[in-house]
Amino acid sequence: MITLTSDFGLKDPYVAEMKGVILTINTQATIIDITHSVEKFNIREGAFVLASAAPYFLKGTVHLAVVDPGVGTERRAILVQTKQGFFVGPDNGILILAAQCQGIEHTYELTNPKFMLSKVSCTFHGRDVFASAAAHLDIGVKPSEFGPEIRNAVVPQFASVNRKNGSLIGEVLHVDSFGNLITNISPREIAQSKRVNVKLQNLSQNLTFVKTYALAKPQQPLALIGSHGFLEIALNQGSAAAKFHVVAGDKIEVKPT
Amino acid sequence: MITLTSDFGLKDPYVAEMKGVILTINTQATIIDITHSVEKFNIREGAFVLASAAPYFLKGTVHLAVVDPGVGTERRAILVQTKQGFFVGPDNGILILAAQCQGIEHTYELTNPKFMLSKVSCTFHGRDVFASAAAHLDIGVKPSEFGPEIRNAVVPQFASVNRKNGSLIGEVLHVDSFGNLITNISPREIAQSKRVNVKLQNLSQNLTFVKTYALAKPQQPLALIGSHGFLEIALNQGSAAAKFHVVAGDKIEVKPT
Amino acid sequence: MITLTSDFGLKDPYVAEMKGVILTINTQATIIDITHSVEKFNIREGAFVLASAAPYFLKGTVHLAVVDPGVGTERRAILVQTKQGFFVGPDNGILILAAQCQGIEHTYELTNPKFMLSKVSCTFHGRDVFASAAAHLDIGVKPSEFGPEIRNAVVPQFASVNRKNGSLIGEVLHVDSFGNLITNISPREIAQSKRVNVKLQNLSQNLTFVKTYALAKPQQPLALIGSHGFLEIALNQGSAAAKFHVVAGDKIEVKPT
Repeated sequence: MITLTSDFGLKDPYVAEMKGVILTINTQATIIDITHSVEKFNIREGAFVLASAAPYFLKGTVHLAVVDPGVGTERRAILVQTKQGFFVGPDNGILILAAQCQGIEHTYELTNPKFMLSKVSCTFHGRDVFASAAAHLDIGVKPSEFGPEIRNAVVPQFASVNRKNGSLIGEVLHVDSFGNLITNISPREIAQSKRVNVKLQNLSQNLTFVKTYALAKPQQPLALIGSHGFLEIALNQGSAAAKFHVVAGDKIEVKPT
Repeated sequence: MITLTSDFGLKDPYVAEMKGVILTINTQATIIDITHSVEKFNIREGAFVLASAAPYFLKGTVHLAVVDPGVGTERRAILVQTKQGFFVGPDNGILILAAQCQGIEHTYELTNPKFMLSKVSCTFHGRDVFASAAAHLDIGVKPSEFGPEIRNAVVPQFASVNRKNGSLIGEVLHVDSFGNLITNISPREIAQSKRVNVKLQNLSQNLTFVKTYALAKPQQPLALIGSHGFLEIALNQGSAAAKFHVVAGDKIEVKPT
Repeated sequence: MITLTSDFGLKDPYVAEMKGVILTINTQATIIDITHSVEKFNIREGAFVLASAAPYFLKGTVHLAVVDPGVGTERRAILVQTKQGFFVGPDNGILILAAQCQGIEHTYELTNPKFMLSKVSCTFHGRDVFASAAAHLDIGVKPSEFGPEIRNAVVPQFASVNRKNGSLIGEVLHVDSFGNLITNISPREIAQSKRVNVKLQNLSQNLTFVKTYALAKPQQPLALIGSHGFLEIALNQGSAAAKFHVVAGDKIEVKPT
């Protein structure tokens, strides 16, 4: 099974070309679109969507993700093997958030031309390198055959949560259309707490964890673990982003209390 | 075979998460998107699109539809068994228009946790309840195992056609982008007529049935059975919605003549 | 394997209805969407997208394409058999660009009602004629069974490249969102050249072929063979369409030098 995530949109032939490549290598492949509507070049948004969806797929699934402003430059093409599956794409961080959630085991650079199209363009590695690699993984080629193991894959800031004096320092991954603030902090890091102290732009407050938005008073800030599996700060019937002047990328400090 | 209809859009990971759940339960499932671009919370639009597409699928197909403003409240989750297949979704009317066309046999409430994800969120039953139920139906679990049979599923106004003094009282289901008025009246109710008297906002007139738009005079109103299988009132080369001031939801009275 | 290309959009039930028809005839069909977001009635755009994607699919693939402003009129429904596969759609040129790239062997008119739905609407041949034909081809029905062979299928201007005094006269197929000018001239017609003289609206200049945009000086025009396999005229970090006042459909004269 292979999933696809990209910023290619649905108007152009690019997604179909990737699927054609995959199905030529493995006519039996099951291909699932996660999304192709990531904002152009927005690696963080692509990483967030991929990390949200990946946990719902079977062990062994190959996740191909391409948001790739550096295509054709020296940025590497990589394959990340986790405890649950595989991630294929550019070495710019888009894979790492989802891969970390599954536990990274090995990372390989994709250098073996045997698993690329015979002619690799300078402008479309999604088709010529990544789709081909994903399909070969899907039919059982061993990860180590794709190229040398590497240990310095790009870890983007939005995949890092640091600890300092008992606090967790993360960031806002995504502001959704309701103004809810989805952070990169995962439940296991705050699992035992019933309340958290949150510092973030114009917000510095103790918040109680609730199960759903309607359990807080209207316009009151709350903390919950969203359906995507990350800590989320929200306002019941209001926009936390507007009230506290928060945008994606802002730092957040969380202290279990 | 499982179809999906929702207002989730294609930008977010939600649709992929539903597919991941289905494919985890049945790796051989064939999943077909009807649409995920229903206007947010517009149950009538979702019901119309589902009712249009469902007749083209094989006997036994499971149709999952989620336009669900009441998620997390007391609204029930249901499974409707028809003579042709199955419908799974919230008990808010979205399933009923399509299910009625196929002939409803039984309706069950989805209460058996065995066929839900082990952790059901308050915000995303499309994934945690409905996708799981659809996949279990698809692998042959009997409808009656999902929960108790019920007899009072919500029948939305837009699924009701009443009779009064030889007239049919229905409503406008959908105004398409040409301004054509698609009603909830199905051909079998007017099958023998060549003309109908139509009363609807600023329109009160006898109309002749035609096979296609171009067979009426320009700007003249006409009646036809559209490709979706419902009675449609239109203007050749013009907008019936604009001329007669009609919007979705307006009542229509039709008398075969 | 069957691919789908249309201007139907993703909001309506039309695409799903075509898929339902296909899967009813062949429950094992693999269906791949190329795009359903072609600009309404823009045959040239549909033809370009189809011609870009088709080369990446397996031998024997059936490509269904419907951009069909003449549906319900006398325009014919056709099936084009090439050295690589099959193309099914209206006889208005949408299939020909892609089919020519694969080498056309035979063209048949779709007249045999055995391979259409039992009731053919006047408004939706994508479902009632083309989807049914594509599915029957996919299960092995011989092309000649669909109807009489014809030799005068519509060849649109955008599929024709003429030669005159050593020059190639073609046209601009598509202006992409960067302002790059994609022409209908294929690599084999200019394969041996390192430079081309290009005449096109406000541009009359010798251009050197480069591998990718960044290898020309900023704002300088360049020629390359794009990832879609056609000659492309572009500006590094700029819009060739804006600078040279070019729109899709403009004539281009190319002379290898």
